[in-house]
Amino acid sequence: MNKVNNNNCIIAIDAMGGDFAPLNAIVGAIDALRENNDFELLLVGKKDEIMKVLDKEKLDFPEENIVHASEVIGMKDTPTTALKQKRDSSIVVGANLVKEKKAHAFVSAGNTGAMMAASTLIMGRIPGVGRPTIGATLPTAKGNFCTVYDVGASVDSKPQHLFEYGIMGSIYAKEIFGIPNPTIGLLNVGEEESKGNKVAQAAMELFKNSDLNFIGNVEGRDILAGTADIVVCDGFVGNIILKFAESIIGLLKAKFKNYAESSFANKLKVGMAKGTLKAVLEDMDYQKYGGVPLLGVNGISIIGHGSSSTLAIKNMVLRAKEMFDKNLIKKIEDSVKHYENKT
Amino acid sequence: MNKVNNNNCIIAIDAMGGDFAPLNAIVGAIDALRENNDFELLLVGKKDEIMKVLDKEKLDFPEENIVHASEVIGMKDTPTTALKQKRDSSIVVGANLVKEKKAHAFVSAGNTGAMMAASTLIMGRIPGVGRPTIGATLPTAKGNFCTVYDVGASVDSKPQHLFEYGIMGSIYAKEIFGIPNPTIGLLNVGEEESKGNKVAQAAMELFKNSDLNFIGNVEGRDILAGTADIVVCDGFVGNIILKFAESIIGLLKAKFKNYAESSFANKLKVGMAKGTLKAVLEDMDYQKYGGVPLLGVNGISIIGHGSSSTLAIKNMVLRAKEMFDKNLIKKIEDSVKHYENKT
Repeated sequence: MNKVNNNNCIIAIDAMGGDFAPLNAIVGAIDALRENNDFELLLVGKKDEIMKVLDKEKLDFPEENIVHASEVIGMKDTPTTALKQKRDSSIVVGANLVKEKKAHAFVSAGNTGAMMAASTLIMGRIPGVGRPTIGATLPTAKGNFCTVYDVGASVDSKPQHLFEYGIMGSIYAKEIFGIPNPTIGLLNVGEEESKGNKVAQAAMELFKNSDLNFIGNVEGRDILAGTADIVVCDGFVGNIILKFAESIIGLLKAKFKNYAESSFANKLKVGMAKGTLKAVLEDMDYQKYGGVPLLGVNGISIIGHGSSSTLAIKNMVLRAKEMFDKNLIKKIEDSVKHYENKT
Repeated sequence: MNKVNNNNCIIAIDAMGGDFAPLNAIVGAIDALRENNDFELLLVGKKDEIMKVLDKEKLDFPEENIVHASEVIGMKDTPTTALKQKRDSSIVVGANLVKEKKAHAFVSAGNTGAMMAASTLIMGRIPGVGRPTIGATLPTAKGNFCTVYDVGASVDSKPQHLFEYGIMGSIYAKEIFGIPNPTIGLLNVGEEESKGNKVAQAAMELFKNSDLNFIGNVEGRDILAGTADIVVCDGFVGNIILKFAESIIGLLKAKFKNYAESSFANKLKVGMAKGTLKAVLEDMDYQKYGGVPLLGVNGISIIGHGSSSTLAIKNMVLRAKEMFDKNLIKKIEDSVKHYENKT
């Protein structure tokens, strides 16, 4: 395989990643290729299994674009151990393709921790970035979206890391979500500057002295209220909020079930309300839309949910293509450099 | 006023505390007295204003049980400044009543920060307690409740503080919620012991070497799933989760409104579903039930929401009485001592 030419986008997909791999990964990625044929696709994984799916689904795909990887990192494998032991796994091989400039992007719905670790350790960080970050985009009462950084790429973030999340999130929101001048809020326990823990207080100083569109401290309620386009916090806090948010639908379902069981009249009422509820709750289930990028690594790395549908995989691949087209890695590097010189 | 006799419970209420004070505070507290006349009630605040309400509401209340306080700490006052400047405020006077053993409990729906600071600084901490804590009780999908400690009494908690929140929360759950052997989870970003930030990792060691009913690390989703009766975390994280949780109803309302506005048929559907939704969401609005204790201070301190109804105030006063009856402060002191000797 030749090194990539910067004008010709090459996206590698982890064919073995996700609960429904290799089927969903392969079908979803090829769907993306059908929608936007302006890139080259590499399928990374066990060649025989990939061939079997291509055969069965009657998909026409060039064999030379299959990159064989003999091992698979399981969803329950410990990330760092798996990386060391499974050096020929699809995740390690895929990350290496980006490192070796044989691909611009690597997309996987496999083991999230392993994907984060492989991307960070193998692709390396963008110069000037202390820690990569992963965001979660939540719907808001205003009808727009709020992306929370970091939601689990790193705990015990230092103030400078929080500041970098803001820089990177800002570029992503501008380039990918099309928000001209994205607002950034610092997650805290109160609006006053003096509030919060030591890390938040020090991060406040960095943000307020920058020319980012920083709106100050925001509170837990501001995420769903849509007060800021980007909310910045340590990955420990962000991960807990994300998982808390994901569990809300479960509580609502249980509550409606209890209510339905409390009387026959209530059962009828819930029956009538069901369709409406479903429609509203589905809109809140943002997971279906696709994966999220690990920002700050030196290459495009997109991580999807284990249960990714073919649609989610397709969206992830198209997102990778968009990040390539918008030259996002370079823009992050330039922006981080801009702020480095200022502080 | 004489010092209290331990057998005769005296509860002081901040008559000036809350958005609907003095009316709600006075009426709610007297309602509690009507329901359980086995305690003595003190109304703390501006005597003339209190008398006016008693008069207007035709409430028979002994004048000698009104404790005059000439100042009021406003909802927007900065807690620590207010405590220093308004030494004759109802919150400071009320906390002093407990310190001077002229009351066993002080209840307020006023400025939360000022109430926490006054309780901590004036009443002092229970011997052995490093930091007081405040919990938030959330409904779960299992139908039971989960109380999260700390939700804002202190940020940058040390591992030992998290451990104490577990001890205190456990006693409260047992004595007040009647849970025989409450389970405690440590909030973290994964279940494995090695997960999380440094504070969580060190707290893990304290919990697992204790004889508390500790079930290990729990994640953000476990709160609403009802995995543990008590979930322990730093006040920075807890406060953000609590405010995030409180904002969910706002998002749901907005989503239903949007859905209703999307077509006439959907408008009818939402119209039909409205009653059901309201019934279900109301059950989730735990705030209406009353206030929460500040555990770890050397006296009973109960803090209510600014918008407390008379029912909420009544419940807060009855909760104070229950804490007195169950000898909760002494039990916390004994338990903290028990674990001190072990570590």
